[in-house]
Amino acid sequence: MTTALPFTHPPHMLLLEPVVRRALEEDLGRAGDITSELIVPAAQQAKAKLIARKAGTIAGLIAAQCAFRLIDPSLKFTVEIPDGAQAKAGAALATIEGSARAILTAERVALNFAGHLSGVATATHALVEAVAETKARIVCTRKTTPGLRVLEKYAVRCGGGFNHRFGLDDAMLIKDNHIAAAGSIKNAVERARAGTAHMVKIEVEVDTLVQLEDALALGVDTILLDNMTTDDLRRAVGLAKGRAMLEASGNVTLQTVAAVAATGVDYISSGAITHSAPNLDIALDF
Amino acid sequence: MTTALPFTHPPHMLLLEPVVRRALEEDLGRAGDITSELIVPAAQQAKAKLIARKAGTIAGLIAAQCAFRLIDPSLKFTVEIPDGAQAKAGAALATIEGSARAILTAERVALNFAGHLSGVATATHALVEAVAETKARIVCTRKTTPGLRVLEKYAVRCGGGFNHRFGLDDAMLIKDNHIAAAGSIKNAVERARAGTAHMVKIEVEVDTLVQLEDALALGVDTILLDNMTTDDLRRAVGLAKGRAMLEASGNVTLQTVAAVAATGVDYISSGAITHSAPNLDIALDF
Amino acid sequence: MTTALPFTHPPHMLLLEPVVRRALEEDLGRAGDITSELIVPAAQQAKAKLIARKAGTIAGLIAAQCAFRLIDPSLKFTVEIPDGAQAKAGAALATIEGSARAILTAERVALNFAGHLSGVATATHALVEAVAETKARIVCTRKTTPGLRVLEKYAVRCGGGFNHRFGLDDAMLIKDNHIAAAGSIKNAVERARAGTAHMVKIEVEVDTLVQLEDALALGVDTILLDNMTTDDLRRAVGLAKGRAMLEASGNVTLQTVAAVAATGVDYISSGAITHSAPNLDIALDF
Amino acid sequence: MTTALPFTHPPHMLLLEPVVRRALEEDLGRAGDITSELIVPAAQQAKAKLIARKAGTIAGLIAAQCAFRLIDPSLKFTVEIPDGAQAKAGAALATIEGSARAILTAERVALNFAGHLSGVATATHALVEAVAETKARIVCTRKTTPGLRVLEKYAVRCGGGFNHRFGLDDAMLIKDNHIAAAGSIKNAVERARAGTAHMVKIEVEVDTLVQLEDALALGVDTILLDNMTTDDLRRAVGLAKGRAMLEASGNVTLQTVAAVAATGVDYISSGAITHSAPNLDIALDF
Amino acid sequence: MTTALPFTHPPHMLLLEPVVRRALEEDLGRAGDITSELIVPAAQQAKAKLIARKAGTIAGLIAAQCAFRLIDPSLKFTVEIPDGAQAKAGAALATIEGSARAILTAERVALNFAGHLSGVATATHALVEAVAETKARIVCTRKTTPGLRVLEKYAVRCGGGFNHRFGLDDAMLIKDNHIAAAGSIKNAVERARAGTAHMVKIEVEVDTLVQLEDALALGVDTILLDNMTTDDLRRAVGLAKGRAMLEASGNVTLQTVAAVAATGVDYISSGAITHSAPNLDIALDF
Amino acid sequence: MTTALPFTHPPHMLLLEPVVRRALEEDLGRAGDITSELIVPAAQQAKAKLIARKAGTIAGLIAAQCAFRLIDPSLKFTVEIPDGAQAKAGAALATIEGSARAILTAERVALNFAGHLSGVATATHALVEAVAETKARIVCTRKTTPGLRVLEKYAVRCGGGFNHRFGLDDAMLIKDNHIAAAGSIKNAVERARAGTAHMVKIEVEVDTLVQLEDALALGVDTILLDNMTTDDLRRAVGLAKGRAMLEASGNVTLQTVAAVAATGVDYISSGAITHSAPNLDIALDF
Repeated sequence: MTTALPFTHPPHMLLLEPVVRRALEEDLGRAGDITSELIVPAAQQAKAKLIARKAGTIAGLIAAQCAFRLIDPSLKFTVEIPDGAQAKAGAALATIEGSARAILTAERVALNFAGHLSGVATATHALVEAVAETKARIVCTRKTTPGLRVLEKYAVRCGGGFNHRFGLDDAMLIKDNHIAAAGSIKNAVERARAGTAHMVKIEVEVDTLVQLEDALALGVDTILLDNMTTDDLRRAVGLAKGRAMLEASGNVTLQTVAAVAATGVDYISSGAITHSAPNLDIALDF
Repeated sequence: MTTALPFTHPPHMLLLEPVVRRALEEDLGRAGDITSELIVPAAQQAKAKLIARKAGTIAGLIAAQCAFRLIDPSLKFTVEIPDGAQAKAGAALATIEGSARAILTAERVALNFAGHLSGVATATHALVEAVAETKARIVCTRKTTPGLRVLEKYAVRCGGGFNHRFGLDDAMLIKDNHIAAAGSIKNAVERARAGTAHMVKIEVEVDTLVQLEDALALGVDTILLDNMTTDDLRRAVGLAKGRAMLEASGNVTLQTVAAVAATGVDYISSGAITHSAPNLDIALDF
Repeated sequence: MTTALPFTHPPHMLLLEPVVRRALEEDLGRAGDITSELIVPAAQQAKAKLIARKAGTIAGLIAAQCAFRLIDPSLKFTVEIPDGAQAKAGAALATIEGSARAILTAERVALNFAGHLSGVATATHALVEAVAETKARIVCTRKTTPGLRVLEKYAVRCGGGFNHRFGLDDAMLIKDNHIAAAGSIKNAVERARAGTAHMVKIEVEVDTLVQLEDALALGVDTILLDNMTTDDLRRAVGLAKGRAMLEASGNVTLQTVAAVAATGVDYISSGAITHSAPNLDIALDF
Repeated sequence: MTTALPFTHPPHMLLLEPVVRRALEEDLGRAGDITSELIVPAAQQAKAKLIARKAGTIAGLIAAQCAFRLIDPSLKFTVEIPDGAQAKAGAALATIEGSARAILTAERVALNFAGHLSGVATATHALVEAVAETKARIVCTRKTTPGLRVLEKYAVRCGGGFNHRFGLDDAMLIKDNHIAAAGSIKNAVERARAGTAHMVKIEVEVDTLVQLEDALALGVDTILLDNMTTDDLRRAVGLAKGRAMLEASGNVTLQTVAAVAATGVDYISSGAITHSAPNLDIALDF
Repeated sequence: MTTALPFTHPPHMLLLEPVVRRALEEDLGRAGDITSELIVPAAQQAKAKLIARKAGTIAGLIAAQCAFRLIDPSLKFTVEIPDGAQAKAGAALATIEGSARAILTAERVALNFAGHLSGVATATHALVEAVAETKARIVCTRKTTPGLRVLEKYAVRCGGGFNHRFGLDDAMLIKDNHIAAAGSIKNAVERARAGTAHMVKIEVEVDTLVQLEDALALGVDTILLDNMTTDDLRRAVGLAKGRAMLEASGNVTLQTVAAVAATGVDYISSGAITHSAPNLDIALDF
Repeated sequence: MTTALPFTHPPHMLLLEPVVRRALEEDLGRAGDITSELIVPAAQQAKAKLIARKAGTIAGLIAAQCAFRLIDPSLKFTVEIPDGAQAKAGAALATIEGSARAILTAERVALNFAGHLSGVATATHALVEAVAETKARIVCTRKTTPGLRVLEKYAVRCGGGFNHRFGLDDAMLIKDNHIAAAGSIKNAVERARAGTAHMVKIEVEVDTLVQLEDALALGVDTILLDNMTTDDLRRAVGLAKGRAMLEASGNVTLQTVAAVAATGVDYISSGAITHSAPNLDIALDF
């Protein structure tokens, strides 16, 4: 139960720490935690546990740990259920020991990270489970919360999903407006190839099977099948015959994802797992 | 329909712009929008509209506008349904005119802000509407998405809600762990008052009506009634007789909020409006 | 003599360290401490003491310590007279042991913090002592040195004073220009209340006893009595009968403060303790 | 009366703006100017004046102007008495026209800069005036307020003073501890010269006339005469015969500076003009 | 002669400006351009030209222009030979008109960018010209000057070259140490694929033709042929039969590059074009 | 062989670390080192060596060490040939032990610093060796790579050279355009002196012996002899008779530098040692 999914390598601390630091600064403001500083004696020690109030897939403990460390490097943080693992309702995720005041000061920011990212991982994992009998992989999009892209991409991996491109610059996705600007899929792909070297993948978004044929003929790496019916998705798989990776996209839900996966597409992308995943309820109990 | 709710003063641009800039940098990465730069001619002009695909309360157009301006100061952004107003499904929220390439480069970040913040405003507004016949005000918490507190607090105002404290430093909230550390509510409040001047409000969290009596006797500004039944809330209102502001808290939902408000409490706080509000579906149509 | 005053909780290191770092960068420039690097052997050890050349209330040793630590984490800094305590002329405040070169490099920045903040604490403490026989508390203002607000507010606490609001956002202070813009005190307060939730205190500035009556009738939290004679202050206290906190403001000096306090006001605010406090002369002796 | 002193070139905007921006962020906090935003209508226009309540030498209007511009670029700021000029009590220094709300939001930060820096300029100018009949120049030190060195050095120039080195890196000042570490003045100077090229000046601090002879014999650029009596200063001038610049240092006050200057030294340095100058009282009148 | 090469889309100003700003801050230090401020009257106007003292391919005018604009937004900068174009010795690249003082202040930083980046473009263009009769494309590496990767990658494009990956994160390059850690090329590639989605290309570095066969059998996107003789490169091309992109790497020089290209490889990578390109001599003439 | 040259005091870590951190962030991008994270087991240990492939003067190991430390503080970095020492081809410069994955992640940035800065040191050292029999010192200029000035100045010292001014602010260099703006050398120097205190050196650039006489008569500290023939340089030395430091400048090469030095000038400045030094080939061997 507490074994993490594979490939849950976290962001490097050089990238993670500034995000956590900013969140702490946002909460400390100028005067800091005036309540705890005035009421809780500096020497008072405590032991607290991060508890999952509901079952879910865990992500973001690494950010929570970073928050406690930045507030007080002497706090001891022991992970019990790591990022990428499944937690039952009531499970203890981690133990924090040390200054009671410091624990209280870091608590909210730590929980905000753990709750939000575990929410993303849990939503992802639900889709992943739903397509487990197929070869389809669940991938995220660029529809992420501003400022948290790297962490949300990590939470998607913790949930068993895979990462689509991280930004505008690490892969090409030629959409309808690009095609319209170029005049045709062919023009767009040719312009893209003329200015791109060998290490950038090219994906083309298509709305119809006719466009799909055009894109396949051009030998692009991936084709995004936008808002197609499952019938059309199945036809698309038949047409492609493995000549390109096929990615189904558009209003994928837990109800529809299995049927989409059954069409034989390689990837199914979901914006909702990052932009609309409800928080996983995690609390700090003393 | 397009009149904004009152009190939707946006964050000052000095505070907003760095958040938007970071989101753009996160999306541009190092190489920038390679797709648009290679395919869309630099001189090509376009006119696009931000469209609400579903009905909701709008928030975050100011951040979307900032994203377009930072990518290209010559883009013309015209608001049609401002932050704080209600939009029907299909309504045009704003028009953007200028370089097609620049519009495509800024699109996703602009939508990520507008969709997320309008989601927060819409969730808030639903609660506000549900208690409209009472004096109860809906307030947010510190359970916000890391890095976006100022913007989410603004979105709550756009939805007709009010803002609880912005951080650990601008008001005191004495919780169960503080009380335990001090030995009693009385001790905790006395320590707080001994070190605080005249411009900081003090709120005490209580679980029972007995604790409520203690807190009332101390003359604190606000009392947070944590996870009480509506019966107990009603009794609390009767006991308080206006001697302190009363805030009901704990698992407030759209289903339960009206009953909570009917007890006569002054404020009802919700973490879900910031940490679990689904995105409002907003798109950019050319 | 060396017991610190209560409530001298320092700013969190996350807030303090960036301010000290910037001051060190400002002094190191690009080439660093060329004098010490060329002349003082890297291996040379030294022991130095921070000495108060004149008597005063100490504040800012925590910033001085941070400066030494940032220049060389292996330096040993031992506090002898902590922030918030009184030092006699000639007293040793702290001992620093380790690399002679590192001590020389950090010296000036450490002294600039300690001297300035102890100056603020000393000026504050003088006012606090002068009103010790009354219930009046000394509070600071927003008239602080740009960039040092959090540290100067801390120095005020070290001197036994209390902190007024930290900025424009954590409490409302309705001044003459706000009242003029609203048309009346009543309008201004109503606008303020309509857009503010339960955790923000409201203070109104009044120049006359007539205005005082208006403000009292509105039930605001605090009333700032601006530039009133002690006679009028005494009348104001009589009128208020405890219905609001009363804060006397305007050209308070060590000569006048006792008389102001004797009128029975609750708070006396002073800009001079932060913007015009002379440095306390502190030196580093080897 | 309103002619600025020469050589008052301000810091470049690239260096000034970040300092002003930080001060504004410090004052705006998270929620911004909640008082003005709720009470003052957005469309209300106003005209305000920066008034010197007391006579003094002006510095820092450039920072005040920057504060108003950063809060609202459409505000019109017209300088009437520029940085470096003398103002009589009651004189209008500048006019600001535009949004009343924006003026109120920027007011305090603008005044904090103008008051502090004009205080530095005024204290400097008093010393400059006191030595006007001699060749002695007043110079500042590195005893500046953390974070404000560049601005305070500028204020010193506005007051007619000159700038000593800006940091540890742009000139060498060999002090007693350096000499002790090297074993002799000769050793110290030789080490300095061995590692320094032709564009760095070398100053040696001496306590006695014997040390002065040593330093003169080494041909250093400047010699700091530390805490000498005016008799010894006069002897030092006689000994030096122009072979090095002579700088008198140590507890220079308005009372003693003329006598120090009369000894014939070239420079007189003062830490008090930056670290202990009282604010010049400047206000914003509508 | 002055037509720019295609695909020379510059980095977005959001990415470019912070790099230029840092360079200016590095040059201005604390006191700024003291020479020009004291000697050149503020009102003096001038017209200056950026001149290529030697022939070369131009890159970095966009950074030079940004430097002039940041120092003085009113300077007029007119490009005559744009980034990506060839300049003869003595050619005027751009004209700058406005404040003489501002031009002098920005001059060195502007030239440092233009000279360095044009050096990179010129070195790239020499290789590009040398292989113009083949299908081989010249690509850069991650051997760039710290802090300038985005700009040097742009300069490579200005020189007619193509960009390899921008960092560790936007494509996979499996090197000898990765293969050793995994035990075999097969293991390494399988691990890579198991954790990577559809939009990341995979390149494998091989030293021998035996390894090449392994890599080809795995269907990777690109194979880096490390330090092979031209004979082996030719054999590699024959073996690959277009199944993967082939990139030749290792000590490519202007003398050897044509022979390497003649083997039929698709890409030739060079570290020297970024890490060892001599400056193109560009000067500012008044 | 492994003894460092004197005066190679490195930049303080407060100045160095941000530069290295930025370089790492530039390489890690958003997703980090995806190749090593997926392929190299987290627990795998390794021992690697930094090897100089070619002979040269070493500089920048301190930056390489910082890169390894920032990626993984537990890596053990042992210097064998320190900054400022000469390395033979094939020499091991340092050993790194610890996590194989961390070593691979930091490798490229570490090498980019070490290779570039050792290139600068090597080019400097070649000039220094060439003039070793004379009193002439080699100095660098402000023609440095943007963002790396402090490190390149350090590399020059590692190569046995000396540093000219670090920026526009720490010394005055009056060039032809300044002289033209002032009307004469005399005017320019007088303006400079009127606004400058005693700790800033003044250098004047001259093109002719007539100008040299003017500058000598004014008693400036240093005179830059621009692009003079060796005959004129010799005459200049004769004219100056030690009244000012003489600096020869302009197209100094390894071929010409000995002849320039033989004229008797005090300093010879070279831009090429910073802007055109080829990388020293340094590799990481496991």
